Amino acid sequence: MTNLTEMGKKAAAAKLYLQKMTTEEKNRGLKASAEALLQNTEKILAENQKDMENAALNGMSDGLQDRLRLTPKRIEAMAEGLNQVAELPDCIGEVMEEFERPNGLKIKKVRVPMGVIGIIYEARPNVTADAFGLCFKTGNAVILKGGSDALYSNMAIVEVLREALENCGFSGDALQLIADTDRQVTVEFMKLKEYVDVLIPRGSARLIQSVVNNSTIPVIETGTGNCHVYVDKAADLDMAAKIVHNAKTQRIGVCNACESLVVHSEVRERFLPKLAELLAPKNVELRGDERVQEILKDCVPATEEDYGREYLDYILSLKTVDSLEEAIAHINKYNTKHSECIVTEDETAAVKFLNEIDAACVYWNASTRFTDGFEFGFGAEIGISTQKLHARGPMGLKELTSYKYAIYGNGQVRG
Amino acid sequence: MTNLTEMGKKAAAAKLYLQKMTTEEKNRGLKASAEALLQNTEKILAENQKDMENAALNGMSDGLQDRLRLTPKRIEAMAEGLNQVAELPDCIGEVMEEFERPNGLKIKKVRVPMGVIGIIYEARPNVTADAFGLCFKTGNAVILKGGSDALYSNMAIVEVLREALENCGFSGDALQLIADTDRQVTVEFMKLKEYVDVLIPRGSARLIQSVVNNSTIPVIETGTGNCHVYVDKAADLDMAAKIVHNAKTQRIGVCNACESLVVHSEVRERFLPKLAELLAPKNVELRGDERVQEILKDCVPATEEDYGREYLDYILSLKTVDSLEEAIAHINKYNTKHSECIVTEDETAAVKFLNEIDAACVYWNASTRFTDGFEFGFGAEIGISTQKLHARGPMGLKELTSYKYAIYGNGQVRG
Repeated sequence: MTNLTEMGKKAAAAKLYLQKMTTEEKNRGLKASAEALLQNTEKILAENQKDMENAALNGMSDGLQDRLRLTPKRIEAMAEGLNQVAELPDCIGEVMEEFERPNGLKIKKVRVPMGVIGIIYEARPNVTADAFGLCFKTGNAVILKGGSDALYSNMAIVEVLREALENCGFSGDALQLIADTDRQVTVEFMKLKEYVDVLIPRGSARLIQSVVNNSTIPVIETGTGNCHVYVDKAADLDMAAKIVHNAKTQRIGVCNACESLVVHSEVRERFLPKLAELLAPKNVELRGDERVQEILKDCVPATEEDYGREYLDYILSLKTVDSLEEAIAHINKYNTKHSECIVTEDETAAVKFLNEIDAACVYWNASTRFTDGFEFGFGAEIGISTQKLHARGPMGLKELTSYKYAIYGNGQVRG
Repeated sequence: MTNLTEMGKKAAAAKLYLQKMTTEEKNRGLKASAEALLQNTEKILAENQKDMENAALNGMSDGLQDRLRLTPKRIEAMAEGLNQVAELPDCIGEVMEEFERPNGLKIKKVRVPMGVIGIIYEARPNVTADAFGLCFKTGNAVILKGGSDALYSNMAIVEVLREALENCGFSGDALQLIADTDRQVTVEFMKLKEYVDVLIPRGSARLIQSVVNNSTIPVIETGTGNCHVYVDKAADLDMAAKIVHNAKTQRIGVCNACESLVVHSEVRERFLPKLAELLAPKNVELRGDERVQEILKDCVPATEEDYGREYLDYILSLKTVDSLEEAIAHINKYNTKHSECIVTEDETAAVKFLNEIDAACVYWNASTRFTDGFEFGFGAEIGISTQKLHARGPMGLKELTSYKYAIYGNGQVRG
């Protein structure tokens, strides 16, 4: 039985240690960890093989098995990820603001680590190394709870990484794994508020919902994406078709894939056939309202429920609107505040859409697919936040930090 | 019975309205609200009188009755507060960052309102106007749940403020009050995640704990303060005594009052009598360890529990340490991550303390009492955050905002 309090205490000790580490020390730890992953490829693959065999016995779907599977190439990618994080600038210690008060107090707002970060995720062993790298670079201790189906893989990876840190003379407790498959332990972990400063769930809507409902620790929701492309009456229709095609089909299983098309009624006759032709080779199922069905005879009727769905599949819902305002209202009603796009040549319409759509990322004439995968240039990513507190959209290293005020006086007291 | 879903829908409509308001419109609304409070002083006082009578009947303590009581002067102060918020700069729409990617995408990080803010607080009717003012200025709709003992007062204040907004032609739903004394309604409010973007509890540790335990909405904890002053061996002892005196006695009931003194053993003989003399006129009860008791004969023995207490009273716990490291470890063990102070003339010691103490505000040679009351120059304050997510320390207008990314393309798709 996992002793969470004991793990919390170790993490609390490690965080004090980590916050004092120099950039050079942290980078040395990251590079040593990357090297250790490569050196221990055989061992990690052997443990992953146990997980794969159990998964096959348990009838895990092919898609999930693919996420669980490690290969030499995937371990190389994990190591490469750690080396890349080592190359990124260290933001800890940055003076974010500095000001002086009339009474002579000098106040500095300084970037500091969060402290201890908890991450709950599914059976994707690569996340184990990724999450460690981002937390370590930002001086945070991390406690990981990965999917039970990846237990052997995660235990092997964590053992290798901890050993690498200890070989550098650093505390291995910078990284701890809850090696337990009891769900009750996970629920208790969500209440380990005394030791964990922030909890980040990564995975399905169900996982995230469970964390939101049970956690007493502050949570960053990395959420689902019901993302829309709105094709305005003033759109360049060729551009619009390419953007929808890319946002829908470039990678269907990701949170910033397009799930719903909103089209202005004035252009539907010209636009929809063009789009259908472009999507045809991908066999995208189209589910639309009556005015869409008038144009596209193969289109299935969309239900109200369709407009709220994140398909993560070759399916697209379609909605006709008569105005920009109607498009904005529809999207604000059904979206998950992730990534939304307007295609138009009309700047006034674009600005209105950018201002009024409530989402982390609002695009004008570009695919929603740029929200993830370091496309904003942050160099690293722990997830895409769909909440408004603390961080919104792609979360890089800075989003894993907090700040403190350091106040310099010479005896000031309050009158 | 309060229909929370209905209130959520109204707030959601109001937030769309509010985010489009100009600075001039918001300031006009604030000034009209201030004026309306003054115009309706008699009415508000009459309703407050009902609350006061019930409070007396229910045997409410004098301290709490004082917080509940309104007077013409206090209503003037509420109005003045709204006028002051109107004078502050509007941060909504600010471009926080702007960058261009190699593929030509232009990305702007723009400051936006949170959306809908929920505030749960105790029977302090002045908070009703204050919270409204801060939320309105930042373009947020707000739903308030004040203490049941202040129900009549809050209903009167909210009615006056809503009417003032509507007289300006604005939506009164920018401000809604849960006029219900059923505790179950409050618990349900904490789960109104579909409509409320952030929940801020203001009040006692018990209230905050209840919100943290029950809320599915992201919470900003405005917490308790077990604040320490550490008197180093290299301290200017006269300065140290004045700082402890100020931090302990200037206002005892606030979260950034000093609750515990940590003193280096090398200076205890010279420092403690000096401090005791200064505190004597205030009748501060001293609870110390054995080495303190050796010096101060009137000192009561401190228990382990004392070091973890927020007294909010004329009581001070005292702890002797033999090193800076021991002081830091003691404070990091018992503090609530609010405000901590070191008094020393030794810069190396000060820097170590500033770096290693885990708290929102860490002071060198100044009273912890500067954390609240606009002393950082933010001009307004919704509370002092003791969590690390989103905001830490004094929270002004900017801390009531989020951001979105606006991305400008010309047809970019992801390869």
